[in-house]
Amino acid sequence: MNGFACKASFSASDFFFAGLAMPKPTNNMLGLAMTPANVMQIPGLNTLGVSMARVDFGSGGLNPPHTHPRGTKILFVLYGELDVGFITTANLLVSMTIKQGDIFTFPKGLVHFQINNGKKPAAAIAAFNSQNPGVQAIAATLFAAMPPVSDGVLSKAFQISNQEVDAIKSKLAG
Amino acid sequence: MNGFACKASFSASDFFFAGLAMPKPTNNMLGLAMTPANVMQIPGLNTLGVSMARVDFGSGGLNPPHTHPRGTKILFVLYGELDVGFITTANLLVSMTIKQGDIFTFPKGLVHFQINNGKKPAAAIAAFNSQNPGVQAIAATLFAAMPPVSDGVLSKAFQISNQEVDAIKSKLAG
Amino acid sequence: MNGFACKASFSASDFFFAGLAMPKPTNNMLGLAMTPANVMQIPGLNTLGVSMARVDFGSGGLNPPHTHPRGTKILFVLYGELDVGFITTANLLVSMTIKQGDIFTFPKGLVHFQINNGKKPAAAIAAFNSQNPGVQAIAATLFAAMPPVSDGVLSKAFQISNQEVDAIKSKLAG
Amino acid sequence: MNGFACKASFSASDFFFAGLAMPKPTNNMLGLAMTPANVMQIPGLNTLGVSMARVDFGSGGLNPPHTHPRGTKILFVLYGELDVGFITTANLLVSMTIKQGDIFTFPKGLVHFQINNGKKPAAAIAAFNSQNPGVQAIAATLFAAMPPVSDGVLSKAFQISNQEVDAIKSKLAG
Amino acid sequence: MNGFACKASFSASDFFFAGLAMPKPTNNMLGLAMTPANVMQIPGLNTLGVSMARVDFGSGGLNPPHTHPRGTKILFVLYGELDVGFITTANLLVSMTIKQGDIFTFPKGLVHFQINNGKKPAAAIAAFNSQNPGVQAIAATLFAAMPPVSDGVLSKAFQISNQEVDAIKSKLAG
Amino acid sequence: MNGFACKASFSASDFFFAGLAMPKPTNNMLGLAMTPANVMQIPGLNTLGVSMARVDFGSGGLNPPHTHPRGTKILFVLYGELDVGFITTANLLVSMTIKQGDIFTFPKGLVHFQINNGKKPAAAIAAFNSQNPGVQAIAATLFAAMPPVSDGVLSKAFQISNQEVDAIKSKLAG
Repeated sequence: MNGFACKASFSASDFFFAGLAMPKPTNNMLGLAMTPANVMQIPGLNTLGVSMARVDFGSGGLNPPHTHPRGTKILFVLYGELDVGFITTANLLVSMTIKQGDIFTFPKGLVHFQINNGKKPAAAIAAFNSQNPGVQAIAATLFAAMPPVSDGVLSKAFQISNQEVDAIKSKLAG
Repeated sequence: MNGFACKASFSASDFFFAGLAMPKPTNNMLGLAMTPANVMQIPGLNTLGVSMARVDFGSGGLNPPHTHPRGTKILFVLYGELDVGFITTANLLVSMTIKQGDIFTFPKGLVHFQINNGKKPAAAIAAFNSQNPGVQAIAATLFAAMPPVSDGVLSKAFQISNQEVDAIKSKLAG
Repeated sequence: MNGFACKASFSASDFFFAGLAMPKPTNNMLGLAMTPANVMQIPGLNTLGVSMARVDFGSGGLNPPHTHPRGTKILFVLYGELDVGFITTANLLVSMTIKQGDIFTFPKGLVHFQINNGKKPAAAIAAFNSQNPGVQAIAATLFAAMPPVSDGVLSKAFQISNQEVDAIKSKLAG
Repeated sequence: MNGFACKASFSASDFFFAGLAMPKPTNNMLGLAMTPANVMQIPGLNTLGVSMARVDFGSGGLNPPHTHPRGTKILFVLYGELDVGFITTANLLVSMTIKQGDIFTFPKGLVHFQINNGKKPAAAIAAFNSQNPGVQAIAATLFAAMPPVSDGVLSKAFQISNQEVDAIKSKLAG
Repeated sequence: MNGFACKASFSASDFFFAGLAMPKPTNNMLGLAMTPANVMQIPGLNTLGVSMARVDFGSGGLNPPHTHPRGTKILFVLYGELDVGFITTANLLVSMTIKQGDIFTFPKGLVHFQINNGKKPAAAIAAFNSQNPGVQAIAATLFAAMPPVSDGVLSKAFQISNQEVDAIKSKLAG
Repeated sequence: MNGFACKASFSASDFFFAGLAMPKPTNNMLGLAMTPANVMQIPGLNTLGVSMARVDFGSGGLNPPHTHPRGTKILFVLYGELDVGFITTANLLVSMTIKQGDIFTFPKGLVHFQINNGKKPAAAIAAFNSQNPGVQAIAATLFAAMPPVSDGVLSKAFQISNQEVDAIKSKLAG
């Protein structure tokens, strides 16, 4: 019913994933690589209510403002230093700088981000209280959805011109 | 413990609210008025897991892209016509035009919006499966939080210049 | 597993319903028309935890004492005036008169009712925190179930004669 | 917050109750005695999600049609024989005769009853998946609430006269 | 999806079980007989969140230390006398002697046990807030799993020699 | 109500913890150090449903068989190599060897363990879907609780003599 099978037989490998061990390349627009480890990679997570992900940041790399509609995130820094923050429903920014071995929490559903303002790469392990927390990277959600969100909605929401909307759309959809 | 008292005595008025009966003025930047009816207005909702809100739209009025971190929304159109949509975690826009008496559903946590592209005012009643669903209006969350989200995060996320970030910030914070 | 499919593809119409827009005829024994808008009418509601219904009342119309075993109800009056109430587990009646634009809450599982004691028709929109709240109209549940609940149970419960039980049964089953 | 304290210190007696050991007198209108064993009797049940009750039936004794708004019930017969049933939301009566040592299940929120149609007393232990399942005995809920449910609601719901309503009210409130 | 079907048609027998009525033989190593009554025996329990079991104890019989990973247990003594206990996460033993008609609660997930230190047989009915609470009898879980838990883990955990581990393994697996 | 306050004001440090950054000494009986990072260390976790812990293993270090009554665990290996396993309710051991960067899942409530059979130290980060998962280290729960679990229960459960029980008790309580 939820799209993931309950296996009649299983083995230890159904509860295991090796894909978070190594950094992934971050030579892209955001300087970011995201490696999920949820029920799609680990069948044994079905009904267990947890998952993980690895986030790699180049120097200047940004995990852009996003939400997880189905889970709280707790983040452990493997190496490097990150400026992290979330915004409350009262529109307060809660932010700080965290470094290797620190952990920080991002409450369920709230917009949050991490940025590597340092000169060296950084990496972190995220854990979620959902087997499939989902993600909406806000800028791409608004400016790169298919079919596109209308210019009228976006120009009024951000108080920018349709031309400015189209410029962002073309960069984010590119 | 959750900040809302369990009353030792109560009356019918604790389960009642009259504040959604009338439209509110929409002569503002977004052409929008939002009237909540949750546990803060209706003490009897505590632990009951429902709430409502009224949304009034002037001609051109926009309920800008936002999320409710703690609830699904189902919307009933009182009068007028609305273009509504939500974006999935696969970045698909699911949208349509709804009119008086129609209902539409916005799944928990997903970014969604409504806009009145007609010449006449419109109004709708929203119901939520939470006594306090919360809301994050994305543009204000990002560009008008206090303290502000840094220009570096926003310029990289939206691929715009710091000047463009500051222009949005000054309009949305104004 | 819960009897409602997760669709491999979907469209906006899976989250939409137009069937609550118009009043339904109320020329029946109770002066009542009930129009559900739950997961059986709106496939996209599956797993989302909300639903709606429209209730139309003729003059004198009664939504008779009933329970929703799987959800709290919050009611918005579209037009007219209703006398509403629920009974607590301490056997207290919590009731009041509500009119156009008012909302009132009926806690999960408790017996409740609405009656239009006015001369004009009335209508209301109900919202639930369940995709399929279920309903048991108490009088019909007891006196019109199939196979019938025995006269012995009903006569003792209501302290009436078997003849009186049979009279109610024949009217409610008719 | 839920009205039951978390004790700073506790002992085994907080998880214990001796009050279900003995039958209670059933020389009353219904031939019934109900002994609860929930969080009000057993403080240690707070947050644990279970409770019990003992039901004693004289010959002819009736546990009249009722609902538990917050829990499913599973019933074990200590001695005697009971005719039991619940009614589904499709208005189907699901019933059978159970005897010493048998168990039967009554789904959450549905109207159900038990009657001892035998010549000898009977007793049963009920278990619930709630620390405080609540109960609404339908006839008393409707005809003996305070303040009273109006004759107009009850006469129309049961299709009986106001005089008949008043007769039931006076018997059940007596 | 959860491995238990939702039946398209059902009858009262789907909610019924007669298998707890009689004691089972206890002439075994532990002096114990366990008779489950969960969703595997009672198909109607699916999604209802309750189940039961009968436990028979010979003189000296032991329900050895075990956990139920998915439910709280509440126990009613049918006859005889039992010494019962659970251990908290602060490693406090909470124990007492209970006799016919008494009830005692064992919080979800905690290690607990019952022993009949009397000369006569004893029996009890257990109820759970899960349709399938599961059980792990600790000694058998550790010393009789297949494939076996390594001697190294067990000898270090219990601070005994590999020979002692093997002796326990051979007795419990036998 | 749950013993953890909802703060009227808060700061980023309420969502932060630095205590997992460094290894802790493992020169003890088990060769193990456990550093929790739950709601007791991180007040902001209250109601958020996640927590973490760091586990350090000396060469030969053992995280002995234990359960978490309130949460599933997912484990990320920081360095070194671990033999890990859990036992199902069908008494099957599910085990494998995991190394730096690997993750493995331990379902809620089931007995599980990790051992460092290598020559070098190892460390891992555990994440839970509970703000306070609790832990019961089985051997200590049974043989070092206060007051003690009786020799009769333990000797019968493990099929060892009272002398052997007392020997384990004195080693584990020491």
